[in-house]
Amino acid sequence: MNAPTIAEDFRRRLNAAAQATEAALDALLATAPLPGEIARPARLLEAMRYASLGGGKRLRPFLVVESARLFGVSGASPLRTACALEMIHCYSLVHDDLPAMDDDDLRRGRPTAHKAFDEATAILAGDGLLTFAFDVVADPATHKDAGVRAALVLALARAAGLGGMVGGQALDLAAESAGAPLSQDAILTLQAMKTGALLRFAVDAGAIIGGADAVQADALSRYGAALGAAFQIADDILDAEGDTAALGKRAGKDAERGKATLVGLLGLDAARTRRDALVEEAVAALRETGFGAATDVLAEAARFVAARRN
Amino acid sequence: MNAPTIAEDFRRRLNAAAQATEAALDALLATAPLPGEIARPARLLEAMRYASLGGGKRLRPFLVVESARLFGVSGASPLRTACALEMIHCYSLVHDDLPAMDDDDLRRGRPTAHKAFDEATAILAGDGLLTFAFDVVADPATHKDAGVRAALVLALARAAGLGGMVGGQALDLAAESAGAPLSQDAILTLQAMKTGALLRFAVDAGAIIGGADAVQADALSRYGAALGAAFQIADDILDAEGDTAALGKRAGKDAERGKATLVGLLGLDAARTRRDALVEEAVAALRETGFGAATDVLAEAARFVAARRN
Repeated sequence: MNAPTIAEDFRRRLNAAAQATEAALDALLATAPLPGEIARPARLLEAMRYASLGGGKRLRPFLVVESARLFGVSGASPLRTACALEMIHCYSLVHDDLPAMDDDDLRRGRPTAHKAFDEATAILAGDGLLTFAFDVVADPATHKDAGVRAALVLALARAAGLGGMVGGQALDLAAESAGAPLSQDAILTLQAMKTGALLRFAVDAGAIIGGADAVQADALSRYGAALGAAFQIADDILDAEGDTAALGKRAGKDAERGKATLVGLLGLDAARTRRDALVEEAVAALRETGFGAATDVLAEAARFVAARRN
Repeated sequence: MNAPTIAEDFRRRLNAAAQATEAALDALLATAPLPGEIARPARLLEAMRYASLGGGKRLRPFLVVESARLFGVSGASPLRTACALEMIHCYSLVHDDLPAMDDDDLRRGRPTAHKAFDEATAILAGDGLLTFAFDVVADPATHKDAGVRAALVLALARAAGLGGMVGGQALDLAAESAGAPLSQDAILTLQAMKTGALLRFAVDAGAIIGGADAVQADALSRYGAALGAAFQIADDILDAEGDTAALGKRAGKDAERGKATLVGLLGLDAARTRRDALVEEAVAALRETGFGAATDVLAEAARFVAARRN
């Protein structure tokens, strides 16, 4: 039997991380209350499970797990952090899909949470997932060193909040309603906040858990930023040329809404060129970590993100 | 000059905590991004400030500050924790007021956030405040011991989330739409989650910051639970007999909505009796802390909460 190619190894590890994350999320979102919780209301729990289980490539969890693995760390620390990050990602999808925001009916080929439940439950399920993410990270089960847990909480909050993902969504909505096109710099800032910050946190988390030195942490962070930017351009390209069935969400809506994307500003060809340059930038940053071939799977992740079809 | 009465001392300390919290929130919600934040979008920041500044008695911050003071601790640790707690409280008001939830136009005598801004901005401002709360607590500026910061994050998340405040709001909405009246036990659970958990966290936080022993922590926690229950009954009484101008929010809406309250179940007189018993329970728990007269101000807080007119 031949040794697996890097692409095969990547697929295998992506699937393994997805399965581990699914199982861990399922256990965290069980019926029984944790100590200090009074009760877990059934319908709210069901909506939180609906929003976070059974879907998605689990790219962010994969990045946490694989970046921690560079430092020889596996087990509960990266996995629980991966779950927390995925909860934040999933809550953001639930809130972004709401009628007052992007007003989407379809997500991952299923009705969005406010369609499957109701709007109030969707808002609360999002709030619940966001809150639970910090619970999971701060719990001693995540790491024996409270300094690591507190650092993870701080980095996650900063990536997810006003100066990161939530702020990026606010800028996105403002751009849609403003009518005037955004500059390239404004688009890059918006995307670095809206999608880049969480992807970057994924690898920053691996560095925090792994006890990276400053050079390694900086290189990984630049890898995460470049991967995040490539991811967003690929997303915009998919929306422009994709079909709804393959995406599992409605395609073509960016142009319809006059959404600020690099595809809209530069055209498809220039966007593809930029996306490919970002993949090279991500791979180059990985080389600076000094981990050599151990980073091959993360390099493949950057190529995968750029080339994905859904 | 005579020594101030306990009631005067309480008023003075409540005002002092409110002013300190207002100033600290104002500084935290400044224009300049923190390290790791990419940018602070102006309109979102404005909405977060609107939702958290300039209003409220700041009872929760007071409870954090005063419970920490029992242990001789003042300064940044209790004040920043108080700000985080108040951010969570304020985000919950913003989301609860949304059209899909309680659909309220008036809060603290001002338009609710989704009326003053728009629904999408209100949702995001709530998300931003919730997220920032954990940022503030996890930041090394809050406490030099990461174990204390991680413990605060965990306790806050557990009080605010699925098994606490968010879950309580979900139960409340379910009770309204079910039509059938809740049992007394169900109402007590709902209220312990929806409003009790955060009030209890306030004093638990003081115990965590102060390094309380198990007996002190348990006594303070029971004080917080009793105070929270008294607070909620007082709230229900105010809604039943209050007027909109004094409340700064619409009165009489509980009965209108068939909302599950002890006033509705037991009547006003029995509710008042229960409220007063809870105040006694709170005061008795304080005695068990062994702090003697140092707890007088917290005892007065329990009486104040029960007797408040808005």
